[in-house]
Amino acid sequence: MNTKIIESSSDAYQYPLLIKQLLLSGRRYGPMNEIVSGDLRYNYLDLNERVARLANVLADAGIGAGDTVAVMDWDSHRYLEAYFAVPMIGAVLHHINVRLSPDQIAYTMQHAEDRLVLVHDDFIPIVEQLAEQLPTVKGYIQLTDADAPGQTTFDIIGEYETLLASADNHYVFPDFDENSTATTFYTTGTTGNPKGVFFSHRQLVLHTLNAATTFAAYEGAPLLRSEDVYMPMTPMFHVHAWGVPYVATLLGVKQVYPGRYEPNHLVRLYRDEGVTFSHGVPTVLQMVLDSDEAKTTDLSRWKLLTGGAAPTEALVRKMMERGISFYTGYGMSETCPLLTITHLSPEQAQLPLDEQVVLRMRTGTPIPMVELRLIDDAGNEVSRDDTSVGEVQVRTPWLTQGYFREPEKGDELWQGGWLHTGDVASINDEGVIQIRDRMKDVIKTGGEWISSLLLESLISKHPAVNNVAVVGVPDARWDERPLAQVVLSEGVEVNADELKAHLMQFVDDGQINKWAIPEQFHIVKSIPVTSVGKIDKKRIRAELANQL
Amino acid sequence: MNTKIIESSSDAYQYPLLIKQLLLSGRRYGPMNEIVSGDLRYNYLDLNERVARLANVLADAGIGAGDTVAVMDWDSHRYLEAYFAVPMIGAVLHHINVRLSPDQIAYTMQHAEDRLVLVHDDFIPIVEQLAEQLPTVKGYIQLTDADAPGQTTFDIIGEYETLLASADNHYVFPDFDENSTATTFYTTGTTGNPKGVFFSHRQLVLHTLNAATTFAAYEGAPLLRSEDVYMPMTPMFHVHAWGVPYVATLLGVKQVYPGRYEPNHLVRLYRDEGVTFSHGVPTVLQMVLDSDEAKTTDLSRWKLLTGGAAPTEALVRKMMERGISFYTGYGMSETCPLLTITHLSPEQAQLPLDEQVVLRMRTGTPIPMVELRLIDDAGNEVSRDDTSVGEVQVRTPWLTQGYFREPEKGDELWQGGWLHTGDVASINDEGVIQIRDRMKDVIKTGGEWISSLLLESLISKHPAVNNVAVVGVPDARWDERPLAQVVLSEGVEVNADELKAHLMQFVDDGQINKWAIPEQFHIVKSIPVTSVGKIDKKRIRAELANQL
Repeated sequence: MNTKIIESSSDAYQYPLLIKQLLLSGRRYGPMNEIVSGDLRYNYLDLNERVARLANVLADAGIGAGDTVAVMDWDSHRYLEAYFAVPMIGAVLHHINVRLSPDQIAYTMQHAEDRLVLVHDDFIPIVEQLAEQLPTVKGYIQLTDADAPGQTTFDIIGEYETLLASADNHYVFPDFDENSTATTFYTTGTTGNPKGVFFSHRQLVLHTLNAATTFAAYEGAPLLRSEDVYMPMTPMFHVHAWGVPYVATLLGVKQVYPGRYEPNHLVRLYRDEGVTFSHGVPTVLQMVLDSDEAKTTDLSRWKLLTGGAAPTEALVRKMMERGISFYTGYGMSETCPLLTITHLSPEQAQLPLDEQVVLRMRTGTPIPMVELRLIDDAGNEVSRDDTSVGEVQVRTPWLTQGYFREPEKGDELWQGGWLHTGDVASINDEGVIQIRDRMKDVIKTGGEWISSLLLESLISKHPAVNNVAVVGVPDARWDERPLAQVVLSEGVEVNADELKAHLMQFVDDGQINKWAIPEQFHIVKSIPVTSVGKIDKKRIRAELANQL
Repeated sequence: MNTKIIESSSDAYQYPLLIKQLLLSGRRYGPMNEIVSGDLRYNYLDLNERVARLANVLADAGIGAGDTVAVMDWDSHRYLEAYFAVPMIGAVLHHINVRLSPDQIAYTMQHAEDRLVLVHDDFIPIVEQLAEQLPTVKGYIQLTDADAPGQTTFDIIGEYETLLASADNHYVFPDFDENSTATTFYTTGTTGNPKGVFFSHRQLVLHTLNAATTFAAYEGAPLLRSEDVYMPMTPMFHVHAWGVPYVATLLGVKQVYPGRYEPNHLVRLYRDEGVTFSHGVPTVLQMVLDSDEAKTTDLSRWKLLTGGAAPTEALVRKMMERGISFYTGYGMSETCPLLTITHLSPEQAQLPLDEQVVLRMRTGTPIPMVELRLIDDAGNEVSRDDTSVGEVQVRTPWLTQGYFREPEKGDELWQGGWLHTGDVASINDEGVIQIRDRMKDVIKTGGEWISSLLLESLISKHPAVNNVAVVGVPDARWDERPLAQVVLSEGVEVNADELKAHLMQFVDDGQINKWAIPEQFHIVKSIPVTSVGKIDKKRIRAELANQL
């Protein structure tokens, strides 16, 4: 399009969007607010000074623009400092997922071409094991929570705090292209090697500004404002801790970094440091809620955001009964991550608990500047009836633009200018999204899609059913048909006709169509699960294919 | 710098920052909230539909990408619709300042190369007078608040509401380069022709996101959140009504457009529509406060932001005594406009009224992503002592990149990559700015700068002084020295020595240095003022030069 683009004055400044601006804002608004990490506590003026010191330490270690610096740490002030110092000198911060296997960690470090590694004592054994496989790594800096750093069998540049203490506290952070890569990390699928996603300064700044607006402006769901106290319970190596450390720093709020997650310790920090806002996957929230400390602590000041997996209704109800304000978000490694978040009107936030549980469990409303569409099998947008499902496809200014050094995989992710999430969802007439299934698990039958998760949920309501998995099996006429594998509760019997009759009630009340009812129910002894405890539908489908 | 820029997947979407995204967000969050304008009220779904209709009307009138569309209207829903529809089709919205003289209006319309004009009945006479001087203009659309549109002596395409009613309510708004010009308007100085500033989609989106965060996140100064009701009292043709219509639409809040400003009407709208947030220059706020309606109305729900000129302490005190939450902002036509705004901690917001008046009158704290520095005569940043003064120079992502078709003036504005505001300010140890003078009025003496406004303020505290102007006059030794022209109150006398003695108390308490005291005091009958009522220091300096 021939729009009007007016030439700039020769001296006009083309202000790039850079992560350093987020840090400067925090110092301006909350200079005396604290960063708490282990026994250490310091304010935003100190944070700015420490980031400058770290930048000098990195420069002294030979790190410059374009180099990649890896971090292996629990949630700490050090990690927060690296969130800023590494990208601010023009380098790339590689968030290593310390939960991967040593082999996978080695693969990601080789693939990302890490040059320097900041490694916590707890991960020194892994690094010792891998060091010889990492020819690109030119040095290691040791991170320790002990009074004296532990011994290492390989050369290190030094211990983090010691290095910072002797570094200059001034660093002139340059401006550069806002499309420069700031961060990278790897996402693991069920097959193949981990894939590297990457985010630029521009993307992280825009993610932060939109998240800050969303968190602060809506009275029915005010997650994070200037007087809040923030503590992550999603690890900082996991998708930028959902981007919140950048938002918290922009606002200059008090931040609490809890180290390795220990449920009782998390609750004590909540209580003693005045924490008001945290986020975590449902399993972490469950552990926190089940801890001894939680039983004797008033939790009603806590705002908790979950994501990464659907929370159970029981968990949400339990949290709300404890007075916790509960919210759900949605995103993935490829999306920085925020795409949707619970949005409530002030009136909705006052509804009876039962009604709120339902609203707060939903996947949420797309945040500003997220374009999200649900595309069905025929390539059309689904209607806003809360039932029809389609693949979630998105556009926002903060999506990975591919996978690092794997263009063919990037081309699968991006098709027709939309990022294909591989998730299947419905949308209601208020624009609220509900994730229904993974694309590869949804059952495509007669041109329609059936959510395997929905069928599992409905079948499991039968008292004789202890566990259930639903997968699609090839069908000559309908393309695919659902098949249910059912584990029965001890001492009871049920047959396929009874289970079909059980499902008919959900046809009657409109939750599913009649053609969604499986013809085949296999009673099995157990259902295979993956290493992280999810139903392994890929294996079920493969085994069924062998049997046919 | 050789940072790492990773190639995008070929199908990855380079999401541009476009004004249409702000409109889509409002519909998502506040679909049923109202836009109120005269007798008309409609919701955000209607707003989206009407913007599409207006886009079709513009297209039917032959307007396409790169064309300029001028608006001459009071604050209305029509103007809000133009804020979106014109830039969203890739055209440029020219905000005509209807307070300029007809000759100046003609100049700006010629200079901007307006192709279509949306003109309110009240300005039809001006357009009739100018039409022959406007060869670029291909058509006029009439805006009316009457039941039947008034007659025109020249051809019009039609009346706005009639055209919208018959237009298609769908329009596929394309994406395009985020650096495309979205808006333009003209700023007038004391000399020469008005100068055209211009803002891109990217700049307006970033201005909006940063303003939204600033308005919502800080508990001590929460200006605009989802449950607020917004009504401008700075005209929509004046620097994007300080950018707030875009912020309000992003959040989806109720918006009230008051037409031509009439103080009693403004107060009635405040009362009847539940308005909570407005902004205006001090003179408008004063008129509103002095209106009959204000005397009998509870104003304590109102949050008022002022700017454009320094409010008097009496005005601020009066507003706060009425329960109004008062805030000060700073910006100019060249800066979109927001640069600083009052920031208070929740504790400061609870201080006694006297202490709050002082805090809320200050020019404010730079908002996120505003880099602001104060540079003294020697080119150094001034110290944060609240007394030393320097020129305000800024960088943000939303500054005009020059003056339209006047590169040499743009080069004066931008020097060394910083926008030179021509304002002189001090900064305190909390980072709060106080504008002290205009650059051209500040008195440069012995390498130091003295604020003429500060001297005027201190001299006027003498009971015999009715009015005072201070200007710099050339001095062989000191470069310049201050000279005061004083109008005495009726029936009293005072001489220079007494006024110097009066000023010594402010030397003693540290407000000024001894060398700031003028040697010369001229007792005069009156002080010349400009057409807008400001002291005409240019004329005073010229007259003094003639006398010397």
